Amino acid sequence: MSETFVRNEDRGAPLMAQLAALARHSAEPGAMTRLYLTPAHAAAIETVSDWMRAAGLDTTVDALGTVVGRLAGPRPDAPTLILGSHIDTIRNGGRFDGTLGVVVAIAAVAQLRAEGVALPFAIEVVAFGDEEGVRFPHTLSGSRALAGGFDTAALEGRDADGVTLREALLHFGRDPEAIAALARPPGSVMGYLEVHIEQGPVLEHEDVPVGVVTAIAGATRLKVEIVGTAGHAGTVPMRLRRDALAAAAEMVGLVEALALADPAVVATVGQIEAQPGAVNVIAGAARLTVDLRSPDDAARLAALDRLEDGFAACAARRGVGITVTRFYEVAAAPCGATLQGVLAEAVSRQGLPVVRLPSGAGHDGLAMARLCPIGMLFVRCTGGISHNPAESITAADAGVALAVLVEAVRAFAATPTG
Amino acid sequence: MSETFVRNEDRGAPLMAQLAALARHSAEPGAMTRLYLTPAHAAAIETVSDWMRAAGLDTTVDALGTVVGRLAGPRPDAPTLILGSHIDTIRNGGRFDGTLGVVVAIAAVAQLRAEGVALPFAIEVVAFGDEEGVRFPHTLSGSRALAGGFDTAALEGRDADGVTLREALLHFGRDPEAIAALARPPGSVMGYLEVHIEQGPVLEHEDVPVGVVTAIAGATRLKVEIVGTAGHAGTVPMRLRRDALAAAAEMVGLVEALALADPAVVATVGQIEAQPGAVNVIAGAARLTVDLRSPDDAARLAALDRLEDGFAACAARRGVGITVTRFYEVAAAPCGATLQGVLAEAVSRQGLPVVRLPSGAGHDGLAMARLCPIGMLFVRCTGGISHNPAESITAADAGVALAVLVEAVRAFAATPTG
Repeated sequence: MSETFVRNEDRGAPLMAQLAALARHSAEPGAMTRLYLTPAHAAAIETVSDWMRAAGLDTTVDALGTVVGRLAGPRPDAPTLILGSHIDTIRNGGRFDGTLGVVVAIAAVAQLRAEGVALPFAIEVVAFGDEEGVRFPHTLSGSRALAGGFDTAALEGRDADGVTLREALLHFGRDPEAIAALARPPGSVMGYLEVHIEQGPVLEHEDVPVGVVTAIAGATRLKVEIVGTAGHAGTVPMRLRRDALAAAAEMVGLVEALALADPAVVATVGQIEAQPGAVNVIAGAARLTVDLRSPDDAARLAALDRLEDGFAACAARRGVGITVTRFYEVAAAPCGATLQGVLAEAVSRQGLPVVRLPSGAGHDGLAMARLCPIGMLFVRCTGGISHNPAESITAADAGVALAVLVEAVRAFAATPTG
Repeated sequence: MSETFVRNEDRGAPLMAQLAALARHSAEPGAMTRLYLTPAHAAAIETVSDWMRAAGLDTTVDALGTVVGRLAGPRPDAPTLILGSHIDTIRNGGRFDGTLGVVVAIAAVAQLRAEGVALPFAIEVVAFGDEEGVRFPHTLSGSRALAGGFDTAALEGRDADGVTLREALLHFGRDPEAIAALARPPGSVMGYLEVHIEQGPVLEHEDVPVGVVTAIAGATRLKVEIVGTAGHAGTVPMRLRRDALAAAAEMVGLVEALALADPAVVATVGQIEAQPGAVNVIAGAARLTVDLRSPDDAARLAALDRLEDGFAACAARRGVGITVTRFYEVAAAPCGATLQGVLAEAVSRQGLPVVRLPSGAGHDGLAMARLCPIGMLFVRCTGGISHNPAESITAADAGVALAVLVEAVRAFAATPTG
């Protein structure tokens, strides 16, 4: 084991150079747009495959466009530890979301090989291509397929141009018939470990470069429709109004108060609309959305019940009609205790405090959790900003993430599980 | 004076027939759309002029398209009492808003003539054409011109097709150069008396057919722009948020609470918008409007100060930026004491309780108040609904309004002012 002191900035600098190189594969010059199964994605697959091969990995591209680089284990039947993240982006996104986890994983394997570390398992680095869910109605297709959770109905989902996922895969030189065979046998994968930017402000606020994820939050989304009575803003006395927007505003306040009072959830109203929406007309109808998340499914469902009770009481008191529709629901994926433990230990060995935090955003780990324990390491990003061209991290923090991942894999190899 | 008993339904029936006839002059078959200086307006002018002549009025159409029917006074220098309302509508509006006041005024003069009542003043019935302010940027042009308050800059205002008011007047056979001469000499007009549907629910709620207006409310409109920080709905902890929509919702609550606590004002948020407006994104910016009205200007301005203080405190506590712009402001027009008195006395003589109420909506009286005392009689409308095809009144209530107007003119003639 090499004990040479390397500064984090120097360890991170090659990663930052790789991220800059990957950022050039974009559908729009000057912006970071790399949607699933597009020419920019194909170019990124080529680049990542080259880097994997340079790191000594046997590299293939699977039926869903996931790049898989494998370092064989000591025996053909040895189990596998999977590292990685995704290389697709949203439209006009940032260059670190997803890609950081891929380049750090490749560099970690390269370092382990260079150091001659003997691992008791095979190790794979994956670069998924469909994490953001921007192009097709379904998402996480690459990770779902590995985990045995791919729904073939997703193949018929269409993008904005009417192209189905099946057609796009064929056009991309992939074989949709081979997807089923991607599912890994139960027990063959020991864990999935992903490095990802935090996409939030907690680590910056805590002044630490990395944090250990406790769970990927589950989420429920509600559509709330309120029906009151439209009227003239000048002629209807306050006490005779059934103002749908005033009711909606009170409900926005209920959502915020609920989440401020319950540390297990975050809740957001991001959309609101009043009808007819004129300055001098009392709103006859209003509509809002609620996004409620928690790493604890029971806490989320309990909060939802309280919220819906509060909405109903507000509507009844105001004499307005209300319809609440749960239009999206995903369960939380807790991170595995062993993987959390080896990540925490590795953070400690860097002389850093261990900050644990949930992931409010979804990740491929949501799908991988069906197959194996998952672990995630978050990296501080400036201002908590992501999904934005302003997304950024420092080379030093990237260097810390690499050191922690190498150390965590080494420690995992030393656990009874590993 | 005829004392023959006439049922209100029977007195109102001919008015309802006239309103049905006028409703046929519309730009859209099946809908009530009669914008200023359009062919539908021209047709309505013809019809109303015929009715005025049949009632014994000398009838002209002035330079702004106002129909003026005059019954001379006892001497050439006798002052004038003006009755009337408007015959333009909004797009897809109702058939009673405005027109009721015109047909009631014509019928009142016809009845006074038929009864041989000798009035010490001239009487005029006006049918203004530009009350709704739908077609051109300025409004109330007909009444402003009579009151000496017409702004010639309004002639250059353009409609949605780019036609100026000047061009539209010329096309309508009117002479824009003659507008200035429409201004009545100060002191020559004793009062302006208008019957109008309430456009609100108060009279229906009080179970009375008519009410005496105390003032036409003044109004202020605000645009409130809030700047927070956009963020991921899952990753930003509640306590680190600067949610622009949550702030906006709290401000909607402040507006409502202010008006519920202050009987002198009504206040409405009719428009709201969150940006970027996505279900899973904390709003980085929000925008709302406030419409605040009061028959008492001092009360309105005091309420505005309290509201703006509340907005500022809310924004400061939440760490969001706020810009409040007052983009529209009109002073209240109190109704004249004598005209309120004769209307109240006339209501009493019908055996009805006198309900006094402010007009939250604007009317031609706002402009006429510059010239002379104004008085308004409101007529109950079903459900308080107006500016809507569902706008309706009963024939009986129209009959009450006619009886009250006739009685009020008679009583006005007997006052020292009249």
